[in-house]
Parts: sequence; C-alpha cells; structure tokens
Amino acid sequence: MQDAALHIGLIGMGTVGTQVADRLLNRRDTLRRRAGVELLLKRALVRDVDRQRGIEVPAGVLTTDPSALLDNPEIDVVVEVAGGDEPARSYLERAIRSGKHVVTANKVVMAKHGPELLELAGEMNVDVYFEAAVGGGIPLISTFKVDLLANEIQRIMAVINGTTNYVLGRMANQGLDLREAVLEAQTAGYAEADPTEDVGGFDAAYKLAIMASIGFGARVHPDQVYREGIEGIEPVDFRYARELGYDVKLLAYAARDGEGQIEARVHPVLLPHGHPLAAVEGPANAVYIEGDLVGPVLLQGLGAGGRPTASSVVGDIIDLARSIHRQVQNRAAFEFDPDVRVMSMDEVRSRAYFRCHVADRPGVLAKICTVFGEEGVSIASAIQKESDDVSAEFVVTTHPAADAALRRTRARIARLDVVDAVDSFLRVL
Amino acid sequence: MQDAALHIGLIGMGTVGTQVADRLLNRRDTLRRRAGVELLLKRALVRDVDRQRGIEVPAGVLTTDPSALLDNPEIDVVVEVAGGDEPARSYLERAIRSGKHVVTANKVVMAKHGPELLELAGEMNVDVYFEAAVGGGIPLISTFKVDLLANEIQRIMAVINGTTNYVLGRMANQGLDLREAVLEAQTAGYAEADPTEDVGGFDAAYKLAIMASIGFGARVHPDQVYREGIEGIEPVDFRYARELGYDVKLLAYAARDGEGQIEARVHPVLLPHGHPLAAVEGPANAVYIEGDLVGPVLLQGLGAGGRPTASSVVGDIIDLARSIHRQVQNRAAFEFDPDVRVMSMDEVRSRAYFRCHVADRPGVLAKICTVFGEEGVSIASAIQKESDDVSAEFVVTTHPAADAALRRTRARIARLDVVDAVDSFLRVL
Repeated sequence: MQDAALHIGLIGMGTVGTQVADRLLNRRDTLRRRAGVELLLKRALVRDVDRQRGIEVPAGVLTTDPSALLDNPEIDVVVEVAGGDEPARSYLERAIRSGKHVVTANKVVMAKHGPELLELAGEMNVDVYFEAAVGGGIPLISTFKVDLLANEIQRIMAVINGTTNYVLGRMANQGLDLREAVLEAQTAGYAEADPTEDVGGFDAAYKLAIMASIGFGARVHPDQVYREGIEGIEPVDFRYARELGYDVKLLAYAARDGEGQIEARVHPVLLPHGHPLAAVEGPANAVYIEGDLVGPVLLQGLGAGGRPTASSVVGDIIDLARSIHRQVQNRAAFEFDPDVRVMSMDEVRSRAYFRCHVADRPGVLAKICTVFGEEGVSIASAIQKESDDVSAEFVVTTHPAADAALRRTRARIARLDVVDAVDSFLRVL
Repeated sequence: MQDAALHIGLIGMGTVGTQVADRLLNRRDTLRRRAGVELLLKRALVRDVDRQRGIEVPAGVLTTDPSALLDNPEIDVVVEVAGGDEPARSYLERAIRSGKHVVTANKVVMAKHGPELLELAGEMNVDVYFEAAVGGGIPLISTFKVDLLANEIQRIMAVINGTTNYVLGRMANQGLDLREAVLEAQTAGYAEADPTEDVGGFDAAYKLAIMASIGFGARVHPDQVYREGIEGIEPVDFRYARELGYDVKLLAYAARDGEGQIEARVHPVLLPHGHPLAAVEGPANAVYIEGDLVGPVLLQGLGAGGRPTASSVVGDIIDLARSIHRQVQNRAAFEFDPDVRVMSMDEVRSRAYFRCHVADRPGVLAKICTVFGEEGVSIASAIQKESDDVSAEFVVTTHPAADAALRRTRARIARLDVVDAVDSFLRVL
C-alpha cells in the first residue's frame, strides 16, 4: 500500500471493464471523497492495446502482460471483469497469493472455486469482493452479508437470467417459437451468438450456487444444482399455462429445511399470476428471499450489462478501500454537500388531477378553462359527468406545471361562482 | 470494550425491543459466529420491569433507570427502539458523548437530528447505525451506503407507509370511505389509535428526509419535505383514476438535478397502472431508486412490524461488532457449515405439468391415469382438447410428489402405445 491511494489493476476491458475504467478515471474527486482514499487505475490487462474503447486511458495503463498486474508490488487490488473459468481463476489465485485484494464480477469462478479462494484469502489476510458476480446491479451480496445477518434464510427464488426471461416473454406475448424468440433476443443484444449458457440454465445455476452458498452458509457447488433449460417449451404451453392461471419463467430455487438439508434447482416453472416474480419482465432480474425474522424481501434491477455491473464492481472497490483504510468508518458513508439547495414546492413541476362540482349550464367549462389558460396550465384530459339535475362533476388532468401555478389555479377555480367546490386535487406521476 | 464480547444496552422493550432481545438471548451461538464476538444483552431500559413480555429475560437485565445504560462503562453499544423525539434524542446524544456506539430504529430522531448525531459520533470516534429507521426490514441504508456508492442517485420514489397503503387499497377495492378504511386498518393492527402520523404523511416525510439525505449526500430536514396526507381523497377519485389508467398511492418522491437542486415531497399521487410501485399492496413497502450507473433498482419488503424491524436492528449490531473487532473482515461474512447436505433432485418434491399427445379413442385416459396412480402421483387438474382426427392433446397438473416419481411417470407414459409423445414436462410452483 502506497500513501493514501488504492492502486488498482484491472483484468478485462470489455463492456464492463470499460465502464469501470470510465468511472474510476472520470469521477476521481467523488470517488476519493467516498472511499477516503484516491482510487488509482494503474494497469489494465487487455488482449489488444490498440483497440478503440470509446474512453481515454492514460498512456502506460494498458498492457497485455498479466505479470504487469499480478507480480507488481504497487498494485493493491486486482479487479477482474474478464469472465470465464480459466485463466481468470489462476489470475485471481496468483493475485491473492501475492497479498492483493480481489474484486471480481466472475460468476463461473465464484460458483466453482469461491470457497477455495475465500479460504486462501483468509490465509493471506486479504479480502475478496464479488457483488457483481450475481445479478449485475442488484444489491444481493451486501443484503446477505449485512442486512439479513440476523436471519436464518429459508428460501431463495430468483428470475436471474435476463436472456431467457426476455425469450419467454416474447414466446408468451407474441406466440413466437423458441428459435424465433432467441433470434430476436440476439438482434436486441440480449443473447449471445451461442445462447447455450443462458438457454440451458447454466448461467442461472452458477448464480444460484453463489446465492445458496452465502444465504444458507453452506457450500453449494454448481454441479449440485439440478439444471434444466427452456429448450423443451413450446408456444402452446403458454396458452395452457394462462388458462390454468400461471406464467412460465426460468426459476432458480433454493431452500433449506430445519435439518440442514438444501435443495437447489434451476428449471422452467409455472408461476401463479400475481406471484412477485411473475411480473418480472424482459431483461430485468429479481430475487425473492425469505428470512425467519425479516419475512419476504424482493430485490429487483438490471441483472446484466456494462453499467449496472460496473456499478457493483466500483461499489465493491469503494467498500474495500474503506475497509482497508480504517480511518473511514460507517458514519463517513454520509457525506453532506452544503451547496445543495432543497427546492420549495412552488417551483416543483408536476402534472395534476382536479375534480370539481360545477353548475350544469352553458359557459361553465369555458370559465374554468380560462383560469387554467391564464395560469399557463395546459389541460391534458377532461371528463364531465352529470351528477344531478343542477350540478355536474368535472375532472381534468393537466400537463406538467409549477406547483404554485397548479395551486393558484385550484384556488381561483374554487372561487368561481359556477363552481361548488374543488373536491379533489392530486398530483399525477 | 471488555474481552471478546459486545455489551449491549437496549432502550425500549415494546414490539421491536422484545424481538431484538429474543434474538440476542436465544440465538447466541449463531450470532457469535457471525459477529466474531459474543453479543451480550446487559441492560434493557423499560417503563415497567414487571410487565409480561412473552420472553424470559435474565434477572438484573431490566431497569427503569436510564443511567444504568447511559452512564455504565460496561456498555459498548446503546440500541434504541423506543421511538419518538424526546427523550430518545437526549439518550442517544448522552450515549455518544460517553463513547458508546449507537444502533437506532428511530426515524423521527434520525430525520430531525441525524446529521448532528453523526457529526458528534465522528468527534467521539464512535459509530451510528440506523438501517431500521427507514422501511423496517427493507435493506435500504446498506444499499445506499455500499452498493450504490459508485452512483449519482437521481431519483427516489417510495411507497413507504404501510398504513396508508392498506387504507388506500381498501378504498380502491371495497369502495370504503377514508373513515371506514382507517377503522378497518386499526382493527387489523395496521393503524394506531391516533392515525394522524400515518394518514397525514408525517411518517413518510421522516423516512423520505433520511433517504434523501443519504441518497443525495445533502441535509434534507423533514421540515423541508413538502407534505400532504390522504385526508382529501374520496371513493369517487379511485373510479376516475382507474378510468384514466391510474392507481392512487401515497408517494414519497425525491429527485436531485444536475445543478445540485433537490425536490422532496410526500403527497397522494396518481401512478400509471404498470408502474413498479403501483403493484405494492397492503402493508408492504417498496423503494424505487435510480442511479446514473446502475439504472433502476427496486427494493420491497415489510416496512414495519416487530420482526422485520428487529431483523434490521440485529443486522446492524452484528455489522457494528464486526467493524469494531477488526479481526473479522469481509470474507468472514461467509461461514460454510460442513454438516449441510445438498439434496438430490430425486428427493425434491414439487407439483408438475404434463402435456402429451394421445390417441383419441376410449380407454386412453384410463391407461395414463393408472400410471400416475401406480407412481403415487396425484392429479390436480386435467384438460383434454382435440387436436386432429386421430390424436388429442392431454394436459395434467399434479399435486406435490417426489421428482423421481414425476420423472418415472413421464418416462412410463411416453412408452404407452396410446401416447405419441410427452411434449412438455414443467414443474409448478
């Protein structure tokens, strides 16, 4: 460790790595304030230093030589976002053996070799962070690691593979068959050229193995996760499922019983309409956890993609920096910017809904609408209904306007002689 | 700090406090393993030591004297779950000034005085944890504090008051008026005898002030949160809202723009059907956060109640213990129990869905159903449809059975001469 900085070696500069580097290089002040130390990107291991990546990397950072990171005593933490089993696993082991901390987004390595790496890290007195290895930007590991620590976790249910969820959604809603839906997912950038890892349930099984290991406090190897993909599902199954009251999802399911027995499985499943996971659409991911004290918790977000994954990776780096540089404790997580101004409600703009009782005679709506016009509030929709012989109910929704103008409008309308009362005034999101 | 234990003084033994004490007293081994030190409940401040609380508290723990905790050098951390502004605020200040760490579930104190307490804690070199002060069991503070650290938070939207959400749900679905719905909520235990704090939006405003302060890194005092309750809403508004494509919710909304301006407001709002917060029903709470890197994140859980709140409080205590006793680092969060056994899929029980093509002649269904019966798999529902002149489609869902029996059934049916193929076999949740 050199002075007050954390020196970072990054392995991989693809979609995720580029976003990680971009944030480290272009938000230095913010990150320094939050981490308590400077976060310095020293070296980044790539296959081709000349490839265009859309960000400016300082000269001398890119390298094709693993030793420039792994055997470099200046590097404090190795951040691995290359993915795949080897050489990533060997790199991480080598980094740990050299006394470096590790942050990784690698689900394959963490699912297959996580416990061994964590044990080795314990011996070497370094730390391993891997929030991004499960569910991209969803705050999962920290939830298990901190928030649910007081609980015995009973069940984990997850829609954790965005590709299959997108594909199943297209099959359900457009009646496509699997081949057509996968083709569409590939075009939309949600599926790889070879979709086996996703369609066959392998990706979900890796993620479930990690979640079950942490949630239940027991080693669950991906080979111990029962796995079926979505290959066998035909369009007609969606019709029967709907008829019976179900949606079809690829579900990752794990449970622990009172005798310390664990079941862990990934397969397509019929989920009842109204189940919290049935509403998870497209590339979104969601994890439903049941703890004995907290009850049910649902976490939802973008499970993959460069930016959400980079969010978790950089969050881990900051967390690690704080944990190393002990001067920064919990309370330092709360920086208060004195330059920020809280707006008055008068300035805040929103849409609004007015409901009023008006006299049922000619010219009334014109009078009301004139007030809206004079206050610069534009009407989006209007409904008028008779309520009795002499009065009618008039409902208006508006386009966005400053709240002061909306409230002036409300007061002025209430004072009109043709208006009995503004019965209701609600904002619209 | 005495030897390898964290000595806890608990303020308040109501619904939450009882659950906190119960977990501390009755899960000592588990908590010790997770915290790295013993968590010892030394004293608990109550109004009446003789009240029945449904748990056994060791002799000498209960006290009515605040000094027995606050001026007791043996106490390392004061855990406050009494609620309200005073005397809770003074107790916490006194604890911090005596060099004690603080864990609190108090939204009023944290919203009004949080920044001052955090600053004082900084001077005294102690920590303040308050996960339970916002949204009961929802992992919120840790999400802001760790997972979203790499982000600029742009928006926070929350359905964060279970009482009003329950009341609005009853008004929307049963056509009750506000008074009737509040009465029902009181009977169901979801509303206080005096419901003003919830119905008037005060509770939500406190929680939003805390979330906005942390999320945006700026002081947002509850007095700066614009606040309207649900008092003005009438049953007819739900009908118009539905007609226009909206649901009605009490929304806590905060946003920060690029110029460092913050808006923060609590009021009823029309939310479009399909909005992630529109589906939050009854006493559930949900918080929707947008970060510039992670995109949208949705966190959902039980926002109030003794057990979910105790889950967050005890989680904070463990987290604090780890942070004090530095020998326990991140990797220690992962304890692997060697005695746990992962079940084979054969033993796992689930319901199943079979779809097969069968010959369209008498006796076919009897043959198929006999196989189910012989394998001990009980049929829950069956649909048969003609698909052409000579064959028909037959769909069966079953009651729970061992997966081995389900798969044997599938194989035996596929071999029947009256069955063309089992086209689909899916599990049912």
